[in-house]
Amino acid sequence: MSFHIYCLLMDPIDRLSRIFERFPGIGPRQATRFVAYILRSTPTLRRELIESIQQLSSGVRQCDECMRYHAGERKVCSICANPERDHSSLAVVASDSDLAALERSGTYRSMYFVLGGTISLASEKATGLRIDTLLSSLPERIERGLKEIILAFPANPEGDATTTRVREDISERAPSLRITALGRGLSTGSELEYADPETIKSALDSRR
Amino acid sequence: MSFHIYCLLMDPIDRLSRIFERFPGIGPRQATRFVAYILRSTPTLRRELIESIQQLSSGVRQCDECMRYHAGERKVCSICANPERDHSSLAVVASDSDLAALERSGTYRSMYFVLGGTISLASEKATGLRIDTLLSSLPERIERGLKEIILAFPANPEGDATTTRVREDISERAPSLRITALGRGLSTGSELEYADPETIKSALDSRR
Amino acid sequence: MSFHIYCLLMDPIDRLSRIFERFPGIGPRQATRFVAYILRSTPTLRRELIESIQQLSSGVRQCDECMRYHAGERKVCSICANPERDHSSLAVVASDSDLAALERSGTYRSMYFVLGGTISLASEKATGLRIDTLLSSLPERIERGLKEIILAFPANPEGDATTTRVREDISERAPSLRITALGRGLSTGSELEYADPETIKSALDSRR
Amino acid sequence: MSFHIYCLLMDPIDRLSRIFERFPGIGPRQATRFVAYILRSTPTLRRELIESIQQLSSGVRQCDECMRYHAGERKVCSICANPERDHSSLAVVASDSDLAALERSGTYRSMYFVLGGTISLASEKATGLRIDTLLSSLPERIERGLKEIILAFPANPEGDATTTRVREDISERAPSLRITALGRGLSTGSELEYADPETIKSALDSRR
Repeated sequence: MSFHIYCLLMDPIDRLSRIFERFPGIGPRQATRFVAYILRSTPTLRRELIESIQQLSSGVRQCDECMRYHAGERKVCSICANPERDHSSLAVVASDSDLAALERSGTYRSMYFVLGGTISLASEKATGLRIDTLLSSLPERIERGLKEIILAFPANPEGDATTTRVREDISERAPSLRITALGRGLSTGSELEYADPETIKSALDSRR
Repeated sequence: MSFHIYCLLMDPIDRLSRIFERFPGIGPRQATRFVAYILRSTPTLRRELIESIQQLSSGVRQCDECMRYHAGERKVCSICANPERDHSSLAVVASDSDLAALERSGTYRSMYFVLGGTISLASEKATGLRIDTLLSSLPERIERGLKEIILAFPANPEGDATTTRVREDISERAPSLRITALGRGLSTGSELEYADPETIKSALDSRR
Repeated sequence: MSFHIYCLLMDPIDRLSRIFERFPGIGPRQATRFVAYILRSTPTLRRELIESIQQLSSGVRQCDECMRYHAGERKVCSICANPERDHSSLAVVASDSDLAALERSGTYRSMYFVLGGTISLASEKATGLRIDTLLSSLPERIERGLKEIILAFPANPEGDATTTRVREDISERAPSLRITALGRGLSTGSELEYADPETIKSALDSRR
Repeated sequence: MSFHIYCLLMDPIDRLSRIFERFPGIGPRQATRFVAYILRSTPTLRRELIESIQQLSSGVRQCDECMRYHAGERKVCSICANPERDHSSLAVVASDSDLAALERSGTYRSMYFVLGGTISLASEKATGLRIDTLLSSLPERIERGLKEIILAFPANPEGDATTTRVREDISERAPSLRITALGRGLSTGSELEYADPETIKSALDSRR
């Protein structure tokens, strides 16, 4: 019996609870509290919630250039469409959230590409990652001025595996491009005493 | 500008994010992750989610007797309608979740009444609590065999204030009823060394 | 090579670090910080620390009656020697800390006996517990007015196993005594929603 | 009444407890558990503990060169005395623990100097820091081949203030030296999504 059919048989409270349980980081107890919150809420909020979810389907699309989700009719998102942004660098990130983090830092004024995840170390597969889309976009990007690819993946084994793989693929396809990765070192607030050896090694290597 | 109007002006991603931020225990970051989860999800899950929320309005109602939310057409929930349940006791609880906790314990086989909250110590008001509904139901409940009211509120100052208030109101209106409150003591797993003086006092008082 | 010999071969910093690592709840990192703290401290504090440890050997003894550690020359501690304390009850506790917790609650004004631990569920042995000392003290305690033994063990499986075992031993040896255990229920501050079924069952059973 | 006199008046258990409470990260409860641990321990461990503390006074000294604490008769510690270590770099660290962290990383094979802390932002004073000792040692160190000072302070405001201050002092006194600071960036295991803007900025700046 599929999850869908199974859900139809349940009462609406359990059914919605089950759906919330599949949300990231949500367990059965908090799922129940969400349902209780919606039960107690006004019809306006409920309608609001339903409309917003519907709008995600109708009013949100992936940007043709960077592949992030954005609102609006246009094929290209506000960052990719911004004539002020510099086309000489392209930051390749795992997810929309990582793109948002780089954007919040306020220093990066060039372009992005959302790969859609990192390589899973269990399978060593790059399934679902948009590596081919990235590669085939390179000639046009180079024409528009691209000089450097910044691989901006998380500082963990999955991120490192993705960096290695994407670096290889790009250097083969577009050997003229400079390929860099985000620097490692002490992150803000970290104490030397509790830093792991690898972080200290990076901090020494990248001293300036 | 109302929250509603304000939301309409936002793009669908921010708008849904804002709504999830109002869910209990959810901050901006997790709200964003919920939206990202829905964006990545299948159309089936999205439809499922919308339908379930709609069904909460159409398919869920408050039980006329215990006031808890339940699914179904009937005016009375499955617990209150169950002929096997014993009408001699009535557990008055703050919320549907507390009712569910008592029910999970598997020992209580009598009736419930959901008060809708506890007295706020800030306002000392019992606003929104269904004390009057409870009181006016007592004559009929007594006729059906009610002998004891169990005040099952949380072991905190708000719960204690509610116990005191409801106890007074009931003893005035129905002096024949026995009124009890849940026992205090060491809860499962607790160490004496870390128990607060009041809990130890209760554990000594209720030794057996 | 014994731990002692091994330690002698180390340098004083590592040696003291190793000893602090054996303190309850202390890992290698905090042990090192303790040594750094002592290194930076004044000679007065260091002397103070050494003297206090020496005094534990010379100036602290176990009470002949309740078996807790106490300072002073006398064979019997200040609680057991207090003529105001009531001899009709005897609270049997696992440790000095549990005795201190009961004493802090301010309601118990009778006698104590420190058993020295709880039954280990791994071995099911009562090794090291002063059950025999307790049993052989009963005739004299009964003569002095003892009527009730309160088994005040932690609300966990080890505590429960100890309660069962001590209850059996005492009821065999001194069948006239009333034997009770600390009451279970909601401890101060606990919410019904998050309480485990057993605690709710106890809270219902001990309602009053 | 001084803390010392006050302690003499207490019983040995409380007295030792009070001393342990002053240890870094230890509260009253854990202090009491330490005393209970020592009370239950063998005379051997107690003697061991006392001897080790005594040896800290007699058998540990500060290295004349790097100022860290080390065991042994020699005026200079094993790192500073090691003829294999390279004298061209000097890592200035806040504490012995930070020196140990750099040493654990296994990549740094040059010299150290322990400053004795960081600048307190409350007082903006460099009280207790061995800045003068460091400065006056520079001519001799330069003679022995020193080329670079690595300021290895924690990545927090206090560490940054110390870096600024020491950098100024050294560049004034020994303008020929290269002065660097540890690199900032993503530390091992960190996710972009949760990184603060400053860390992301550093990671972009130090990309390679």
